[in-house]
Amino acid sequence: MKQSELFTKTRKEAPKDEVSKNAQLLIKAGFIDKEMAGVYSFLPLGLRVLRKIEGIIRKHMDEAGGKEILMTVLQDKGAWQSTGRWSDEVVDNWFKTKLKNGSELGLGFTHEEPITKIMKNFVFSYKDLPFYAYQIQTKFRNEQRAKSGLMRCREFLMKDLYSFSKDKEEHEKFYEKMKDVYMNIFSELGMGKKTYLTISSGGSFSKYSYEFQTISDAGEDEIYIIDDQKKIAINKDDFSEEILSDFGLDLDKNSLKKAKSIEVGDIYSLGHKFSEAIGLKYKTQDGKEEFVYMGSYGMSPTRLMGAVVELNSDENGIIWPENIAPFSVHLVMLPSKDGKVKETADKIYDDLKNKGVDVFYDDRENASFGEKLKDADLIGIPTRILITQKTLEQNSVEIKKRNESKVDMIKLTDLLSVF
Amino acid sequence: MKQSELFTKTRKEAPKDEVSKNAQLLIKAGFIDKEMAGVYSFLPLGLRVLRKIEGIIRKHMDEAGGKEILMTVLQDKGAWQSTGRWSDEVVDNWFKTKLKNGSELGLGFTHEEPITKIMKNFVFSYKDLPFYAYQIQTKFRNEQRAKSGLMRCREFLMKDLYSFSKDKEEHEKFYEKMKDVYMNIFSELGMGKKTYLTISSGGSFSKYSYEFQTISDAGEDEIYIIDDQKKIAINKDDFSEEILSDFGLDLDKNSLKKAKSIEVGDIYSLGHKFSEAIGLKYKTQDGKEEFVYMGSYGMSPTRLMGAVVELNSDENGIIWPENIAPFSVHLVMLPSKDGKVKETADKIYDDLKNKGVDVFYDDRENASFGEKLKDADLIGIPTRILITQKTLEQNSVEIKKRNESKVDMIKLTDLLSVF
Repeated sequence: MKQSELFTKTRKEAPKDEVSKNAQLLIKAGFIDKEMAGVYSFLPLGLRVLRKIEGIIRKHMDEAGGKEILMTVLQDKGAWQSTGRWSDEVVDNWFKTKLKNGSELGLGFTHEEPITKIMKNFVFSYKDLPFYAYQIQTKFRNEQRAKSGLMRCREFLMKDLYSFSKDKEEHEKFYEKMKDVYMNIFSELGMGKKTYLTISSGGSFSKYSYEFQTISDAGEDEIYIIDDQKKIAINKDDFSEEILSDFGLDLDKNSLKKAKSIEVGDIYSLGHKFSEAIGLKYKTQDGKEEFVYMGSYGMSPTRLMGAVVELNSDENGIIWPENIAPFSVHLVMLPSKDGKVKETADKIYDDLKNKGVDVFYDDRENASFGEKLKDADLIGIPTRILITQKTLEQNSVEIKKRNESKVDMIKLTDLLSVF
Repeated sequence: MKQSELFTKTRKEAPKDEVSKNAQLLIKAGFIDKEMAGVYSFLPLGLRVLRKIEGIIRKHMDEAGGKEILMTVLQDKGAWQSTGRWSDEVVDNWFKTKLKNGSELGLGFTHEEPITKIMKNFVFSYKDLPFYAYQIQTKFRNEQRAKSGLMRCREFLMKDLYSFSKDKEEHEKFYEKMKDVYMNIFSELGMGKKTYLTISSGGSFSKYSYEFQTISDAGEDEIYIIDDQKKIAINKDDFSEEILSDFGLDLDKNSLKKAKSIEVGDIYSLGHKFSEAIGLKYKTQDGKEEFVYMGSYGMSPTRLMGAVVELNSDENGIIWPENIAPFSVHLVMLPSKDGKVKETADKIYDDLKNKGVDVFYDDRENASFGEKLKDADLIGIPTRILITQKTLEQNSVEIKKRNESKVDMIKLTDLLSVF
């Protein structure tokens, strides 16, 4: 894509009420725009990153046997009343609205209830189980405060997978597998080394569940690291003698390393909670009726985008990991009076595109050298190719990685072979 | 995909309150599920079709120079008050909700206001214009009645593109181009011959605008066909002596063919309506300040999915056009006692997949021959390959197109060369 054709520009300032680093950088670099606190639009560069994160998640969900669906934002209250989660006193972050006839509707903050209801149309026999359905869909949570940028939004994208199994044993096989699947996703996003499988209390469904926590000073959570090699931790809020003894851990709280962290995923064993309330049953091989044993597995692509920025930046801007960068290469040209630099840069752009390289081309004629370099650092594409009158005189371009300070001169004739 | 791994099943009945053909067929075939009137979840087969429709639209929008973005559902009232569209008395299909602090929010039914506000950060000079931004995003309309299935939803996907031009002349060049782009999309969806560029009154923004209307008895609109060759019509609601004379048409209303139709798209010249209300200005080459001249271009992928089903079905089910079918080939096998049929079918499935063919494989062991054929017709994949004991005895399979009655026997050795 040519930068001259992109309508966004870098901005000197983010909105004054924007305190999080991720939102400040993403707004200044033109990736997102703030509609209101906790509600952001994704502009072309931001949407490219988001789609790449979604792509990585989707690949892993499909490989794990997940089938993709898309459920609705608008929620009829019936199923939520069955599980006791309709009341604002039980769930304090509902957004609610009304039909013309006065019927109250909710905006989905999660989808256990509707998916359990849907599956009543399709699950009858033990032969129909197990299976796994997931979606990447917009969720709404009426947060009291939303000041962590993309990390705590009122409107955000969530990947939520739901598992449907015959019994606890079958469920646990998949639940264990998902622990690895999740860690593989975080590794692919370049945050594997900082992410811990974290024991937490299970909410109302089971005694314990697991979160995935990534160490960062921008995090709203705190964890105690139990095993740095195996990447296991306990959420500080849930730390207790009981939990230690349940997990057979003989540890002194004071000897454990504590760290601030971002919750980047969570996986729950739901047991029969939803299937019993909503009536999702199947016939066993012996002809008995049993409730389906469920699990849910959440992960937010938008929050992950915020977390990646928190983890990957310097004083000049964002430093995107290669596989989710909006483009692989930022080709920056400073035009010469005789037009030769632009002419050469145009050709490099075409050649790289033809080779299948994802190039963002700063072809702007009226931006200064300083502006161009500053913009490139702020936007944070992994590899920058610079071509100016001076480099052209040596039949060369300058190549620099965003995360290194070293600059290499490469001959024009050798450039294509680098990619 | 193997049918045995897909959790959806065909259903004998759609919900009793579902009167539209598109929703009845799509629910019975397991493509969608009804959350409430006008609100549908997309199940795996349905989501595949939807993504293909989106892909066709996206390709055409990108080729026309559109840059994709993703705006928000939740809407702050500020910009909407500036244009006078916040009040429920002016816009009667708002869904509204509230933040914890009591501030009212709307759920976007369209996005002229927020996109105009966003662009104030990026448009300063004539050099920044023209440009085009679009999204494929979920919209909400609080419809009094919703009984046309996917064709009139309370929650639905919309592709909305917005154009930003210096003046009327620049705008009109793009507006004219979009007429062709839209017709090309409808042709690609197999509905080109039934779709008319339809003159209608322009709403509050301009004297006239254009809709795209596709002839169908399921439509909620009516058009008069003016030119069947050039595919031009007038919306019956807007038909008047004045409109005829404005377009230089000398026609007798009674001589024109009238037809029921589905509105499948609309394109509006917005002029300065939004830029003036919200203050989106630019500096001309002469240093004067001017308001940006805007246009908006709508088209709903979910409504199109409904329209395609209305246009392409028979008494046995859906007949998907090749390029938006959930799969290209439905491989149906009826197992034999010796396991040979399944063994051969498994191999065909692998071979076709390896060749890049999108295959849905009915590998179910416990469904009857009748059920399998009935399901295949209902689901409506364009090509069916049938393998049974009988065909295998002739070293052959049966091939049948969903939209033809003719059945061809093809030798196993020749099968791959057909695809």
